[in-house]
Amino acid sequence: MKHTANLPGEFELIARYFAPLARGFPGAFGLLDDAAVIAPAPGHELVAKTDAIVGGVHFLHDDPPDLIARKALRVNLSDLAAKGAVPRAYMLDLMLPKTVTEEWIAAFARGLAEDQNEYGVHLIGGDTDSTPGPVTIAIMAFGDVATGRMLRRGGARAGDTVFVTGTIGDAALGLTVLRGKSAHLDPKAAGFLVDRYRLPRPRVTLGPRLIGLASAALDVSDGLLADLRHLCEASELAAVIEAPRVPLSTAVRAALATDSGHMTTVLTGGDDYEILFTAPSAVLGELAELSRTLDVPITAIGRMQSPSIGKETRITVLDESGEPLTLDRGGWTHF
Amino acid sequence: MKHTANLPGEFELIARYFAPLARGFPGAFGLLDDAAVIAPAPGHELVAKTDAIVGGVHFLHDDPPDLIARKALRVNLSDLAAKGAVPRAYMLDLMLPKTVTEEWIAAFARGLAEDQNEYGVHLIGGDTDSTPGPVTIAIMAFGDVATGRMLRRGGARAGDTVFVTGTIGDAALGLTVLRGKSAHLDPKAAGFLVDRYRLPRPRVTLGPRLIGLASAALDVSDGLLADLRHLCEASELAAVIEAPRVPLSTAVRAALATDSGHMTTVLTGGDDYEILFTAPSAVLGELAELSRTLDVPITAIGRMQSPSIGKETRITVLDESGEPLTLDRGGWTHF
Repeated sequence: MKHTANLPGEFELIARYFAPLARGFPGAFGLLDDAAVIAPAPGHELVAKTDAIVGGVHFLHDDPPDLIARKALRVNLSDLAAKGAVPRAYMLDLMLPKTVTEEWIAAFARGLAEDQNEYGVHLIGGDTDSTPGPVTIAIMAFGDVATGRMLRRGGARAGDTVFVTGTIGDAALGLTVLRGKSAHLDPKAAGFLVDRYRLPRPRVTLGPRLIGLASAALDVSDGLLADLRHLCEASELAAVIEAPRVPLSTAVRAALATDSGHMTTVLTGGDDYEILFTAPSAVLGELAELSRTLDVPITAIGRMQSPSIGKETRITVLDESGEPLTLDRGGWTHF
Repeated sequence: MKHTANLPGEFELIARYFAPLARGFPGAFGLLDDAAVIAPAPGHELVAKTDAIVGGVHFLHDDPPDLIARKALRVNLSDLAAKGAVPRAYMLDLMLPKTVTEEWIAAFARGLAEDQNEYGVHLIGGDTDSTPGPVTIAIMAFGDVATGRMLRRGGARAGDTVFVTGTIGDAALGLTVLRGKSAHLDPKAAGFLVDRYRLPRPRVTLGPRLIGLASAALDVSDGLLADLRHLCEASELAAVIEAPRVPLSTAVRAALATDSGHMTTVLTGGDDYEILFTAPSAVLGELAELSRTLDVPITAIGRMQSPSIGKETRITVLDESGEPLTLDRGGWTHF
């Protein structure tokens, strides 16, 4: 690390703020060695995922540092969860401009500590550097999955039901609130949506339980329809979605009541970090039981089907009358 | 990824330049899923390391992109090697400013491909993002090591010999050449030093063979003396180094002949990516044999000893007469 002038040196920063986050994971060696060791549990392999976030691109420069840290970690844990893995550890590369203060770093580390408690993961390594650019955070997360059982994007079969957890569109509308474009919302609804944007809730309890039930899965980060398209492409299938069945929060329903144009944002906005998955109807009862036990809403929103020969259309979205909708620049309309 | 205006979209970039780098590693799923799976060989665990490099901090903006890519990868492989691990795979987070062209990315990926061939590693995942800052590259590398056998910084014993591979100071002097501060060097020597700065040679063949021989090890990245201090602190020992025994290239010898002040840069400059390790005298013969077999120079430069009680001094550097030297602002002088 080339450390910045107004901060303690690299080793002091690590000792003070990051080494405590490695406690309890023997292979992290207290962040006092050059590398970590990690092995999956017997009969398991490691699922590895990395995602980086950049100031001014994925978060705002004045966002609270603890929330930035937690979002950086959670977007990775969300991928692990959607792949059926139990999160265990992560590494962190932190690129800091000279304007960053020690207080900022302390709050950032506090955010990580909170989420380590919540998700049972440990920091096992990393790197801090100065940058002439914005705060940049790269996280690599590791989880255990039974060997050969990682939930894949491919694997869905024609006739499978399409499910999604939680509610869709909250985060994307939260971002419009932060950008001052949803002034008509009452403060409570606006606050809920902003919180959903800033702090994803990775479905870590449900994900690993979907192994053996789901035929394909991924988390919703690019947007419900874009991610469903990924799943369709990998599974070489098409999908039909019933728009009225897409689960919406009270706040999103309120936003839609004043401006139905928000539906485009809901279906395509992304940052939901819910799990989108497919499963055969034979497991509907087990899914309902899981949903109750884990207190994770699971909603059927459509079905997988064979693609029409010669047609590019992977996804059909139906309105409340069962009529297909199409997305153009003006929003969702009938053909 | 939010992709930049003058580039193909994220998926196109991945398909064209990065997916080919995942071929041959089944758990990478062709970069077509959201995460990778990796498991150590039976009886082994994974050594995990991450290091990031930032444009304008760790490399120059107009450095050749293939060399930037290779350096970013190699600094991580060097850590794996020094820890005794056999490199297997890596993930890549690539943050790109809008000024980056597709040609730049093509050359960057070509550099990675070359090094994948050289080191037998595969790209298994990653993330590309736009940034308002400089090119920023975070690499996380994985290697196999026999369970519990990772070479540690601690573990040296009093009486152990201190060894270093290759030659020391080349890269640090190469950087002074790039900064126009070593104009007196002949072009061939200058070119050699710059190459050593731009392209580390991680000691991947030797590192894993040091398990069972070395008592402690790490790679020289912060500088010979700084890294030896890390080893001393972790081992709770002191060290004596004989300066005349530190292995130097012909180019560094030429530089020292014109300006002995360069010795400070040599001993403290860093970026060597050689392995610094300690071993008992009982294995000297085996080390000499390894050095011959693998064609990796290994040089004894000093010894470990018990720290003097009440003294802070961890490292003593002796001159050709056995007199201790001390480093002050003017360079190395006698006490």
